[in-house]
Amino acid sequence: MIRPADVIERKRNGEELADADIRELVLGYGRGEIPDYQLAAFCMAVWFRGLSAGETLAMTDAIIESGETLDLAAALGRKVVDKHSTGGVGDKTSIAVAPIVAACGVPFGKMSGRGLGHTGGTLDKLESIPGFRVELTLDEFVAQVRDVGVAIIGQTADLVPADKQLYALRDVTATVDSIPLIAASIMSKKIAAGAQAIVLDVKVGDGAFMRTLPEARELAEAMRELGTRAGREVVCLLTDMDQPLGRAVGNALEIREALATVRGEGPPDFAELVLAAATRLVALSDLGLDEAGARARVDAAIADGSAEEAYRRWIHAQGGDPSEDRLPTAPVVRAVEADTDGVVARVRALAVGVAALELGAGRRSKGDEIDHSVGVVLLKKRGDRVGRGEPIVEIHARDEATAEEADRRVRAAFELGEDAPEASSVVLDVIG
Amino acid sequence: MIRPADVIERKRNGEELADADIRELVLGYGRGEIPDYQLAAFCMAVWFRGLSAGETLAMTDAIIESGETLDLAAALGRKVVDKHSTGGVGDKTSIAVAPIVAACGVPFGKMSGRGLGHTGGTLDKLESIPGFRVELTLDEFVAQVRDVGVAIIGQTADLVPADKQLYALRDVTATVDSIPLIAASIMSKKIAAGAQAIVLDVKVGDGAFMRTLPEARELAEAMRELGTRAGREVVCLLTDMDQPLGRAVGNALEIREALATVRGEGPPDFAELVLAAATRLVALSDLGLDEAGARARVDAAIADGSAEEAYRRWIHAQGGDPSEDRLPTAPVVRAVEADTDGVVARVRALAVGVAALELGAGRRSKGDEIDHSVGVVLLKKRGDRVGRGEPIVEIHARDEATAEEADRRVRAAFELGEDAPEASSVVLDVIG
Repeated sequence: MIRPADVIERKRNGEELADADIRELVLGYGRGEIPDYQLAAFCMAVWFRGLSAGETLAMTDAIIESGETLDLAAALGRKVVDKHSTGGVGDKTSIAVAPIVAACGVPFGKMSGRGLGHTGGTLDKLESIPGFRVELTLDEFVAQVRDVGVAIIGQTADLVPADKQLYALRDVTATVDSIPLIAASIMSKKIAAGAQAIVLDVKVGDGAFMRTLPEARELAEAMRELGTRAGREVVCLLTDMDQPLGRAVGNALEIREALATVRGEGPPDFAELVLAAATRLVALSDLGLDEAGARARVDAAIADGSAEEAYRRWIHAQGGDPSEDRLPTAPVVRAVEADTDGVVARVRALAVGVAALELGAGRRSKGDEIDHSVGVVLLKKRGDRVGRGEPIVEIHARDEATAEEADRRVRAAFELGEDAPEASSVVLDVIG
Repeated sequence: MIRPADVIERKRNGEELADADIRELVLGYGRGEIPDYQLAAFCMAVWFRGLSAGETLAMTDAIIESGETLDLAAALGRKVVDKHSTGGVGDKTSIAVAPIVAACGVPFGKMSGRGLGHTGGTLDKLESIPGFRVELTLDEFVAQVRDVGVAIIGQTADLVPADKQLYALRDVTATVDSIPLIAASIMSKKIAAGAQAIVLDVKVGDGAFMRTLPEARELAEAMRELGTRAGREVVCLLTDMDQPLGRAVGNALEIREALATVRGEGPPDFAELVLAAATRLVALSDLGLDEAGARARVDAAIADGSAEEAYRRWIHAQGGDPSEDRLPTAPVVRAVEADTDGVVARVRALAVGVAALELGAGRRSKGDEIDHSVGVVLLKKRGDRVGRGEPIVEIHARDEATAEEADRRVRAAFELGEDAPEASSVVLDVIG
C-alpha cells in the first residue's frame, strides 16, 4: 500500500510517479480510503508540475477502472463514433452533427455533461425540447444507438465515478485548468463510453478554456495519445472561440440554430464546423469512405432531408417533440442597435457568454435553474459592416430589466473598426 | 465573505493576497466553515509560490486570533523570556537553559511540543523524570513562572487551535517544509504564549529541517520579523546540526546531560550553545545587563550551584523527582568499537537520530509509546582521534536485538579520515 503523503511529496518535487502510485491514489480516493484533502494537495502539485504522458495515461486508466465500461463495438457489431468539445459560447455542434452522421449510416453514441459555465451544456440545450429525456440507462443507450442510430445521454453514475468526484474537488480547489488533468478527465469518459472513433473539438480563444493555440495543441495531443493508446481513433479539430460559434447563444435558440444547420440553413462559421466534424466522423467510420467521399455523403444527407429526418427520429426516440414551434420562447425580444458606423472587428465570446448567463441561460452554481427560452442572437459577427442604428443583436429575455442589462453587456462585447479584419476559418488546425 | 477557491487560485497564480483573504481562510477553517481540502490545496500553492512578509504576518495573526493569548508581562509585572528550537538530534537545550536563566533571576516560561521525529521532543524528555507533569492549565503555568521563576509545559488547546489543525493537515499533504508556513506556525505559538523576549535556535544541517545556511537564515529572518512586528524582542542563533548536539541522544540520557551542563560539566559543543542561549536571554531580560554582564551572571549561576538549585526547584514544582538516580536506565548497555584508526570527520546526525528512533527513543507515528531509557551516547565526535578497537558509542537498548541493529546504524554514521577536520563553532551565526 502506498503512503499518499509520499506520493504527493514526490509529485511536488517533480519526480516521475509509478503507475501503481497513481492507480492507488485514484482508486483509493474512489473507494473513500484516501481523503479528499490528500487528492486536493496532489492536484495542486500536478497543477504546478504537470504529468508526464505515462502518468497521464496511468491516471486515465485508473479513472476508467473506477467504474464500468461500455464496449459498443461488441454490443452493436458496428464501429460507433463519438464527438466531444471542450466547450465554448454558442457551441451546439454535437446536436447538429449527431443526426447528420446518423443519416449517413454511421452509429453515433455520446454521453454528455451539463454546463456549469456561461450557457448550458449539451444536455441543458436538449432539455429545451419538450419531453426530451437525457437520463437513459446504459442498456437503453446501447439499444437506441443500435435501433435509431443516434443517442446523446447524460453521463451515468456507473461510468468513471472517480472522474465525477475528482472534478467536483478540482472545481473548488483551483485545480481545474491543468492540461493533463483535463485530458485524463475527458478521455477517461470517452474511452469508458465505448465509441471506437472520436472527434475532439478543442476550442481556443477568449470564450474557451484554452486561451492560446499552443495550449490547445498541447491538450489535443495529450488527448489523442490517450485515445490511441486505448486503441481508439482520434481526430482533433482546433477551432476558434474568440467570437461565439454561430449566431445563437442560449438553449432553445441554439436548438433552432442546430436544426437549421441540419437543414443546410445554418450560419456560415457554425455550418463549416459541423461539416468538418461530421465529415471526419464519417471518414473514421466503418463505411470505408475517404474524406472526399465522406464529405459528399454528409452534403447529400443534408441536401436530401435525411439528416433532418434523422434529427426527428432521434428526438422522438428520447421522448422529445421535434417540432420547432414547441420550443419555448422568451416574452421579451428586443434589438440592440449599433452606436456608430463601422466594421465588426471583434465580438468577445466571454462577454456574450456572461450576458447570456445573466439572462438566465446558464448556471452560476450547481443548483441553479436554467431558463431555456432566453439568450441572444448575434445579427452581426466579425467582418460584418454595420450602420449606425442598425440592429446588431437580438436579446431574448424574461423581462425588461434583464434585457436592459444584457443590452449593456452585449454592446460592450462588440468592437467596431474601420477596416474589415482578415477573414479566418473557424477550423484553425486538424490533428490526426 | 471570500470565495476560498478564488483565494487559492490567486495564490496559485502568484498574486499577493489581502490580509482579509488569509484571515478568513484560516479562521473559517478553524471554525469548520472552510473544508480541509481547500486548505490543503492552499498550502500546496503556498509551497510553490511562498508567502510575502505581509502575507506571512497576516497568517500568523489569524492563527493567533483563532484562540486565546497570554500576556505574561501584565500577569507578572516582569519581562518573561522564552526559547524555541526548530529541532535536531540530541537537542535538550531548553532543559539546561531554563533553570540557568531562572537562577539569574529572569522569569522563563515556555510551551513546548512533542516530538514526531527521530527522538522525543522537550516534553518527552521531561517525562523521563518520574512524576513530571507537562499538562498544566494556563493559570498554573502563569503561577509557576511567577512563583518558581520557570515553567515548561505542553501546548494547551486554548492557544492557537488553528495551528494544531493546520499542522496536522500539512503533515499528511506534503506541505510541512515551507519556510513561511513554518515561520507562521512557530511564531504564532510563541507570540500567543506571551513572552516578551525570545531566543530562536534555528538548526541547520543533516539532522535538521533546514539543510543549508541560506535556508536557515531565511527562516530566522522571517520569524524575527514576525516577532518584531508583534512587539517582541527576538534573537536568532543559527546553529550546527550536521552532527548530534552534545553526546546523549535519547530521553533520560539527555536529561542527565542537561543536568550535567547545568552543573558546568556538559560536553563542550552543547555547553557552548547553552551558554550562548542563556546569555542572550539574560541580556534581553529586564535586569539591564549588557552581553558581558549577562555572561558573567550566567557563569556565576552555574559555578555557585544556583542553576542546579533552580533545576531542582523547577522539576519539583511540576511534580517530578529531580534526583538523577531516579531516571530510568536501559537493561542492555554496550559499546561500539572503532573498526580502524583515524580522526572522526563526520558523525551524521540523521543516521544517529534514526538509530535512536529504532531503539525506541522516538515515535514513528502519533500513537507510538516512547521508551525513555534507551538511546545512544557518543563517546567520540567530529575532530576526535580514535584507535582501532576503541569505544566510540555507548548504546542503551531494551534488548540485544535492537542493540545489534543500532550498532550497525551508528557505526555507519561515523566517517573516519586521516586529518582532523577544521574546528568549528556550534553557533554559526547570530541574527538580532
